[in-house]
Amino acid sequence: MSTPEYLTGNKEAISRFLDKFDVFLFDCDGVLWSGDHLFPGTVPTLEMLRNQGKQVVFVTNNSTKSRQDYRKKLESMGIPATVEEVFGSSYSAAIYISRILPQSHPELKKRNKVFVVGEAGIETELDSEGVPHLGGTDPAYRRDVTPEDYKLLAAGDPKALDPDVGVVLVGLDFHFNYLKMCYAFHYIKRGALFLATNMDSTLPSAGALFPGAGSISAPLIEMLGGQRPTAFGKPNQAMMDAIEGKFKFDRSRACMVGDRANTDIRFGLEGKLGGTLGVLTGVATKEDFLEGDTRPAYYVDQLGDLAGGL
Amino acid sequence: MSTPEYLTGNKEAISRFLDKFDVFLFDCDGVLWSGDHLFPGTVPTLEMLRNQGKQVVFVTNNSTKSRQDYRKKLESMGIPATVEEVFGSSYSAAIYISRILPQSHPELKKRNKVFVVGEAGIETELDSEGVPHLGGTDPAYRRDVTPEDYKLLAAGDPKALDPDVGVVLVGLDFHFNYLKMCYAFHYIKRGALFLATNMDSTLPSAGALFPGAGSISAPLIEMLGGQRPTAFGKPNQAMMDAIEGKFKFDRSRACMVGDRANTDIRFGLEGKLGGTLGVLTGVATKEDFLEGDTRPAYYVDQLGDLAGGL
Repeated sequence: MSTPEYLTGNKEAISRFLDKFDVFLFDCDGVLWSGDHLFPGTVPTLEMLRNQGKQVVFVTNNSTKSRQDYRKKLESMGIPATVEEVFGSSYSAAIYISRILPQSHPELKKRNKVFVVGEAGIETELDSEGVPHLGGTDPAYRRDVTPEDYKLLAAGDPKALDPDVGVVLVGLDFHFNYLKMCYAFHYIKRGALFLATNMDSTLPSAGALFPGAGSISAPLIEMLGGQRPTAFGKPNQAMMDAIEGKFKFDRSRACMVGDRANTDIRFGLEGKLGGTLGVLTGVATKEDFLEGDTRPAYYVDQLGDLAGGL
Repeated sequence: MSTPEYLTGNKEAISRFLDKFDVFLFDCDGVLWSGDHLFPGTVPTLEMLRNQGKQVVFVTNNSTKSRQDYRKKLESMGIPATVEEVFGSSYSAAIYISRILPQSHPELKKRNKVFVVGEAGIETELDSEGVPHLGGTDPAYRRDVTPEDYKLLAAGDPKALDPDVGVVLVGLDFHFNYLKMCYAFHYIKRGALFLATNMDSTLPSAGALFPGAGSISAPLIEMLGGQRPTAFGKPNQAMMDAIEGKFKFDRSRACMVGDRANTDIRFGLEGKLGGTLGVLTGVATKEDFLEGDTRPAYYVDQLGDLAGGL
């Protein structure tokens, strides 16, 4: 395995690096900011890239926010961005369902509804692609299970189970409950495809870890005897394919920037991008990048070193 | 592997079989009844066994019911039983926590509270053993997560996390939610032991399958990077040890009766009981018993064949 090239403080190396790429895909938390703290070099670096005519894309596994929501979050952090520059796991799933599934699973054209386990971000993105859905934030599913539910679900009664549902899409759901587990399981047992926005087992918040989307899929995987969903979100390549489908970029001229070797850097390497850039402001340490199994092609102490070093 | 002996219709073989055992452990659903339907031979067979001075024990993985609740269920099905004859996974867990843990984990004597994810059956059994607990059916945990929760949990604030909690016990919880997942995870990350009443991934009801206790543990296992709980419930031998601790029986003179090879029969075999009896009124087929990897020593078409054949 080759040793990553260290760019911090090396003007010439930074120039050569920048010349190699037209598109930069950014992981956000740990790269642009940490928690509520924006790194000082983030905005100047993004500005420098845009001034050089580079395409920037913000890639997030967060399924609870739509692209519009996430753009607002970027803005609230002080980062100017357009909706078009945001690529989230919910949007990735919506594109897959609306554009890829009709080709790969023509039988789903008649069963084109999606049962959602998740928050509004998923619904917004399905709406943006014109995909009909149920479940999600509908208060009808935020209640205790009743004996009547057991009967209707066991019988496959259309009063409970919509026969047009062909896909179950699971993301992070702060309102997850037993009833939704029952519905998702019975739809899948009756032939619906099992998809997940992303499989992150945890979600960082307030400096600690909380249940992530992968923890919401876990009970279903257990009930299905180990059957795993098709998942979007880094490092799954379904996400890279969707990004490429949208931006039509040349992979050899694109670079993935991230703080985690096993998700961000792996995402770029497996996607055969021209480059990967590791930053040391998040999860990975210098040793992870220099000696780990998944190494970026380049690394910097912090993202701002790209602009600062020019 | 030896071939199970078929007892149905063979008077002499049944007499020999009965003479070998003083204690009969019964799985219930699929053996004594199916769903709401009591098998006609169940009551006469239990009566015959009791008349012969045999000890009968009803062994259930159902964690939502206390022994008292389960005795009522048996009675409502038409089966006379005493509380002492019922052995459930919640009771098994309560005995383990009150009697075994203080020996094996003396540091828990000071942190002796249990955070419960589950229904009233667990609470009743912990109460019966004098074990203090929180969570469970307390309505304070049946609500949405708030930003304040994240802060308190991340900080390990005693306003949220009781410092006396040394055990997290997870069973089937029809009121499972994101908040409880957060609490259970943070207690375990702060050193609490991870226990589960049982690991059945599904629960049969109304002729179909619904999420079982194992599906409630699944998100935690996922968040903990694969760490599994110490589980009671068949086929875990912690349950057999607890049954033996209570009834003080001679394992060589005990027989496990069940309809599932991989739970009931395995439970008896791994517990080194004198015998195992398979019945064909539940999950397993004749082929499962005759050709499977886990074979009972004896089998009958239905439990009632024991009394009917005498």
